[in-house]
Amino acid sequence: MSFELTILGSNSAAPAHSRHQSSQFLRLENHTFLIDCGEGTQMQITRYRLKLGRLKHIFISHLHGDHYLGLVGLLSTLNLRNRQDALHIFGPPGLDDIISLHLKYTETVLGYKVHFRALDPNQSEVILDNQQLTVTTIPMDHRIPCTGFLFKEKPKKFRLKKSSDLTQMSFDEINTLKNGQNVMANNHIKYALKEYTDPPYKPRSYAYCSDTRYNETIIPYIKSVDLLYHESTFLSDREQRAYETYHSSARQAATIALKAGVEKLILGHFSIRYKDLSPLLAEARQVFPNSQLAIEGQKVSIQLDSHEQEA
Amino acid sequence: MSFELTILGSNSAAPAHSRHQSSQFLRLENHTFLIDCGEGTQMQITRYRLKLGRLKHIFISHLHGDHYLGLVGLLSTLNLRNRQDALHIFGPPGLDDIISLHLKYTETVLGYKVHFRALDPNQSEVILDNQQLTVTTIPMDHRIPCTGFLFKEKPKKFRLKKSSDLTQMSFDEINTLKNGQNVMANNHIKYALKEYTDPPYKPRSYAYCSDTRYNETIIPYIKSVDLLYHESTFLSDREQRAYETYHSSARQAATIALKAGVEKLILGHFSIRYKDLSPLLAEARQVFPNSQLAIEGQKVSIQLDSHEQEA
Repeated sequence: MSFELTILGSNSAAPAHSRHQSSQFLRLENHTFLIDCGEGTQMQITRYRLKLGRLKHIFISHLHGDHYLGLVGLLSTLNLRNRQDALHIFGPPGLDDIISLHLKYTETVLGYKVHFRALDPNQSEVILDNQQLTVTTIPMDHRIPCTGFLFKEKPKKFRLKKSSDLTQMSFDEINTLKNGQNVMANNHIKYALKEYTDPPYKPRSYAYCSDTRYNETIIPYIKSVDLLYHESTFLSDREQRAYETYHSSARQAATIALKAGVEKLILGHFSIRYKDLSPLLAEARQVFPNSQLAIEGQKVSIQLDSHEQEA
Repeated sequence: MSFELTILGSNSAAPAHSRHQSSQFLRLENHTFLIDCGEGTQMQITRYRLKLGRLKHIFISHLHGDHYLGLVGLLSTLNLRNRQDALHIFGPPGLDDIISLHLKYTETVLGYKVHFRALDPNQSEVILDNQQLTVTTIPMDHRIPCTGFLFKEKPKKFRLKKSSDLTQMSFDEINTLKNGQNVMANNHIKYALKEYTDPPYKPRSYAYCSDTRYNETIIPYIKSVDLLYHESTFLSDREQRAYETYHSSARQAATIALKAGVEKLILGHFSIRYKDLSPLLAEARQVFPNSQLAIEGQKVSIQLDSHEQEA
């Protein structure tokens, strides 16, 4: 029942101060996802002993090199490992051209299918919908087409308490309880929901917002998420520079987190100019105390919480 | 007067066992050259504290990802560092298309000029010729168009011994000695070459041969070089596999070194299957004792040697 994010890269623009470029590895139960894929991502995956066997979906936010230049190498390595399962890549229009051109010149025919879906940077779309979660794009405010991604678990079922009565229930009766209803018989309650179940776990959610200017239009998409990654390239004394380069300050990232009422904020996409990142963290915590830095190799988990499901 | 090679990557196909993909950094006096540029090369350059300021020439042997996927990231990082000097890139036809497509989608206009020269993989050409050295391509026998590179110092001048007579010589007389001739006056030797000079240093040379099948047609190009890098992807028990994949064994690399009469051999481009490389080294040394492994971060220097210049 894990919902675990591993930071693979936290730097913007170019690798520096032993920090790599943007990439994150998200594990949600038996699904694994890769979000952005800067140069060296495949080495980082190896360094942190992450497994690629279950990776079926890669999400690329935009076509700045620090977010995608590790992709072709990763595809090639998966091919060398005799991958056979299809891989789904979501990214901006043009990413497919780039992949195709590399494969053409390397004279490579991948042994697995790549399904590419071009994302529309101007509107939010549900791009993945399975039994466990949905993935929805979030339009970012960046210099070139760019989308964030919201990973949200599906509403969960009520949890059956231990009871000897369960053995007497039919499959339909158990499903009725799991779906949050009393089991009725002749207009009477046969098995009461409260007696036989605990409330469902709250569906967990993670929003990845990089790269973007400070822009409050993203707030409705990320409202109340458990975990928000928001780029914070600069300190607030460079907000003019952030605006000009379509980036955000740590203070701005924290302001978005506060206004969206999220549970926890992770700061990342740090400018090369900052070797010591503690001033960025301090600045964010002044606005939003539950902030932390994206540290490579660090895992951030969202625990199951049995609060009542939101309406 | 340094002639120093730094190994940045030594693995074939994919990074593994903490080894990166092909790249080498060559320093010859005040020139620096980059040979191949696998993914992560820019991080390796940083790790080993190499300077990019004097880098003006990049040589890419062929368009397999393990030899060039770090190039676009490196170009981008040079741009972020406000590089202004033109950069010369030599590589197979198509590399320019790849670079252009990346720049198009990232909407990047580099602040420095890139001069691209497409190499002909079917014939040897002098592609660089300046006061200090020539760089000549060597046709490789690989699955896709591929060239090796021979870096060879220009013939050097005779070295003036310390002598109080020097102050009495004219500029022309000194040059006559440096060019290896006695200074004559009225049909007599005025200043004897042997008295006033030591023989010139032998021009140093380095040949980079990756990737290639065992093919003796390269021998004339690499005859008697001081340093030969020859790929040795496999051990000799896999020479059939090497043949099929257009690669060489360590034994074959050593055989080429022996037949070409080179001074020293460096083995590299190791298959992922070998974590321990000592068997490859042992195999090569049975044929050619002065062999060594390409170890990342290791520097291999060619010392000046005052043997008589070759004819």
